[in-house]
Amino acid sequence: MISDYDTIVAPATAAGGAIAVIRASGRDAFALCDRIFRGRKPLSEADGYTVHYGEIIDGDRIVDDVLATVFRAPHSYTGEDSVEISCHGSSYIVSEILRLLTAAGGRMAQPGEFTIRAYLAGKLDLSQAEAVADTIAASSRAAHALASTQMRGGYSDELERLRDKLLNLTSLLELELDFSEEDVEFADRTALRETMQRIGAEIDRLRNSFSLGNAIKEGVAVAIAGAPNVGKSTLLNRLLNEERAMVSEIAGTTRDVIEERANIGGILFRFLDTAGIRSTDDRLERMGIERTMESIRKAQVVIHMIDAPTLTGAIPEPDFTLRPDQKLLTVANKTDQAPASLTLPENIIGISAKQGTGIDRLCEALRRTVDTDALYHGDPVVSNSRHYEALTMAREALDRAADGLSNALPADLLSEDIRQVIHALGSITARGAIAPDEVLRNIFSKFCIGK
Amino acid sequence: MISDYDTIVAPATAAGGAIAVIRASGRDAFALCDRIFRGRKPLSEADGYTVHYGEIIDGDRIVDDVLATVFRAPHSYTGEDSVEISCHGSSYIVSEILRLLTAAGGRMAQPGEFTIRAYLAGKLDLSQAEAVADTIAASSRAAHALASTQMRGGYSDELERLRDKLLNLTSLLELELDFSEEDVEFADRTALRETMQRIGAEIDRLRNSFSLGNAIKEGVAVAIAGAPNVGKSTLLNRLLNEERAMVSEIAGTTRDVIEERANIGGILFRFLDTAGIRSTDDRLERMGIERTMESIRKAQVVIHMIDAPTLTGAIPEPDFTLRPDQKLLTVANKTDQAPASLTLPENIIGISAKQGTGIDRLCEALRRTVDTDALYHGDPVVSNSRHYEALTMAREALDRAADGLSNALPADLLSEDIRQVIHALGSITARGAIAPDEVLRNIFSKFCIGK
Repeated sequence: MISDYDTIVAPATAAGGAIAVIRASGRDAFALCDRIFRGRKPLSEADGYTVHYGEIIDGDRIVDDVLATVFRAPHSYTGEDSVEISCHGSSYIVSEILRLLTAAGGRMAQPGEFTIRAYLAGKLDLSQAEAVADTIAASSRAAHALASTQMRGGYSDELERLRDKLLNLTSLLELELDFSEEDVEFADRTALRETMQRIGAEIDRLRNSFSLGNAIKEGVAVAIAGAPNVGKSTLLNRLLNEERAMVSEIAGTTRDVIEERANIGGILFRFLDTAGIRSTDDRLERMGIERTMESIRKAQVVIHMIDAPTLTGAIPEPDFTLRPDQKLLTVANKTDQAPASLTLPENIIGISAKQGTGIDRLCEALRRTVDTDALYHGDPVVSNSRHYEALTMAREALDRAADGLSNALPADLLSEDIRQVIHALGSITARGAIAPDEVLRNIFSKFCIGK
Repeated sequence: MISDYDTIVAPATAAGGAIAVIRASGRDAFALCDRIFRGRKPLSEADGYTVHYGEIIDGDRIVDDVLATVFRAPHSYTGEDSVEISCHGSSYIVSEILRLLTAAGGRMAQPGEFTIRAYLAGKLDLSQAEAVADTIAASSRAAHALASTQMRGGYSDELERLRDKLLNLTSLLELELDFSEEDVEFADRTALRETMQRIGAEIDRLRNSFSLGNAIKEGVAVAIAGAPNVGKSTLLNRLLNEERAMVSEIAGTTRDVIEERANIGGILFRFLDTAGIRSTDDRLERMGIERTMESIRKAQVVIHMIDAPTLTGAIPEPDFTLRPDQKLLTVANKTDQAPASLTLPENIIGISAKQGTGIDRLCEALRRTVDTDALYHGDPVVSNSRHYEALTMAREALDRAADGLSNALPADLLSEDIRQVIHALGSITARGAIAPDEVLRNIFSKFCIGK
C-alpha cells in the first residue's frame, strides 16, 4: 500500500551527539529528499534497505556530507516510503536540513506522528504503539522488560484470546435469538458461567498486575522515615552513591518534593525526601512532618530507620501506620557505634550508612519488595492506566453479565453485556479498528518528536 | 586494506532521542556484531551500504529490534569494516548493547578514535579531521561555513600548493649542492626572492585570517558598556529575545563571567556582562567596574551606550579606550523618551531597547563588524590555534631564509630554512605522514565519544 499521507520530517536523535538522524516519511519522501540530496543516483531510484553517501545541498552551498537510508513502502517503520538522513551532529546542520526539507514541501511531524502512521498502516496495534514510547523512556531492566513484552505483542495476544472466547459465547447466545420462538438454549448455562468465571479471573490477574506494572514503570516510591538525626540523609546518599552510574536527580511530578532515583538490581526506586518525625510545637517543623506523612502515604515501601546505639530491649514501633498494600523495612542504623552485645532480630536490617556496611542486604530487601518473576517470564503485566481503566470496564460489564445469568435474563441482554466486555478489551489494542481521534491524540501527544 | 586494529564501539548519538545509533569499527566488527545480532542473515555475509532488520539478543532475551547498517572496508568512515546499529533511544538499551558488544570482545572507543582511524587510513588529513569536531560544534552559519571549507580540504589544498612551490625551491637549491664545486646557481636569486615574498604574503594572509576565524568559531565577544541605568541589561535582553530561537545561555570558559550568546545574521556573538561605569568610592562597586574594564579589554566589539534623553550638544566620550583592533559601536538608548528635536549624528545608532526600535539597525551594525565575505566565498580562513602556531613558525623560518638570501648564504643553509617552512606547513595537514602521538592525543581528546 502506497501511503496517501503528506510527508512528515523530524529529527529522530537528541541534540549533541557525533551524528544526528533526520527522518522523512510519506507520499513524497523520495522526491522531497532528492531535491536537497546529491548522491551517485537519486534516492527515488534506490532499492529499499540501502544506504547512499552524498551531500545535502542548498543551491550551490554544501550543507553537509550525509548518509541517506532508503526504506520502500511497506517495508519501513511507518509502512510508507521513508528516508533517514544521517548527518554530522551539529544543531546548525540539523536545523538547516529540516529547513530545506520543509521548504521542499515537507511538514514538521507532530510528537509520535511516525508511530501513529505505523499504527494506521497496521504495523503495530495501539498497545504496541504505546509500548514504543515506554521502551524509549525505560531506564531500568525491569521497565525495559515490561515495555518490551508489550511491544512484542505478548500482551495483545492474551487480550485477543480472551476476546475470541467471549465472541464464541456471544455467537452461541445470538444463535439462540434466531431460534427464540423455539426456546432452545444452545449455550449451556453452567458451561457459560464457568467460562465467564475463567475470563473474569484472567481479567482480574491483569488488573492486579497494574500495581506492579505501574511501580516498575514510574519507579517504586520509597519513603525513608524515622526520628531526626537517625541518619536518613546519610542512607539516601549512600544508596545513591552505590548506584551512581545509574542515578539521576530529577524533579518529581509534584514541584515541592524532590525525588532521588536509583536503579537497584534492575528496578527503578524513587526515594522520597522526608523530614525527621518527632512531637514538636514548632509550626514550620510540623509542616515538614505533615509532608513526611504525605510521603509515607504515597510510598509503596517505607524504610523505618531506628538508632542502633540507643536500642534497649523492645524495638520501637513506627510513628505511622501503613496500609496493607504497603511494605515496611525496619533498618537499624549506626551499628558501628552500637555495643558489641547488640543482637538484632532477624527481620531488622542492621546497617552503618556512614561505613557502608549492611547496604547490600538492604538493597536485596528493597529488590525483593517487587516481585519481578512474572515480568521476566514474559507474563503480561499491565502498566498503562488507559489499559487498567479498560480492564475495569470489562470487569464491570462481565459482572453485569454474570448477574444476568444468575437472574436467568434473556440471551439478548446477556449478549449485550458480553459485547461490552469485548468492546472494552478491544479498545486496548484497537486491532482491526481505528481508535477515536481523541484517544490517538491523547496517547501520541506524550511521544517525543521524531518517533 | 583490511584494518588490523581491534574493534572499537561507542554510542554515536546523544542520549534522549527517539532513536540512538551505536558504532562498531575494526577488524572483527562483523563477527562481533553477529554474536548479538539475529537477522535474516549474518552481517558478515551482507553487502556494504545495506541495512538489515533484526534483534539484539542476550542469550534468550531480546534486548531490542534494531536496524544494522553494514559498511565494508575501505568504504566506511574509518576505512575499516564497520556496523552502525540503530536502536530505540533508551539509555537502558544503549548501555545494554554496549555491554553486550564489549562482552563479545569490543572495546569502548576513546574520544575521536573513529576519526583517528579515518586519519590513519588516509581518509582525511589532520586539518580535515580537526574540522570534523568543529563541524559538529558549529552553531552558526558562519562557524559552519568555516568548518565546512576546512573539512572539504579547500584549506589543505592551499597549503599543499604553498608546499609544492617551496619544494620546487629546495630542489633547485639542492641541485646546486650537487654541483657545488662548479659554483653554479640554478636558482635565480631574484626569482627566488620574489617567490619567497609571494609565499610570505600568502602565509600572512592565512595568519591574518585567524582573528576572523577564531572570532567566528568561539563567538564574537561584545561588551555592552556605559553609565549605570543607561539600559544595558534591557538591550541585552532585547538582543537575546529577538533571537530567542538560536539563543542558549552557557557558562563562559571562565567561571565567574556568565556569557549570553546570540546568533545574529548567522554569526555567533558572545555578550559579556558588564557593570555600569562611574566614579565611586564603594569598594565592591569598584571591583565590578574592574571586571567591566576586563570585559572591555577582552571584547572584539564594544557597544558604548549613552542616554538619548539627556544628550545635550556634544556626544559624551567613552570612559575607556580601545585598541586599534577593537570596534566601537555608539548606541543612544531611550530615543522614545528623548525630545523630538534630538537629531543623532550618522555614526550613532538610536534605539529604544524597551520598545524594540532601532534594534534591526544595531544587529546589522553588529553583523558588519565581522567581514564574512572571504568565508562565504570559500577562501581559507584559519580558526585553529595549532594551525596559527604552525603558520607563525613557517613565517619565521621563511624570514630566516629571506635574510640568508640577502646575506648571500650558501644554498645548503637556505635550503635548510626552507625545509623548516615546508615542515611547519606540512604539520597542519600531516598528509602522507603520521603526526606524532602527542599531537594526535592533543587533537582528538577534544572530540566527543563516538566520532
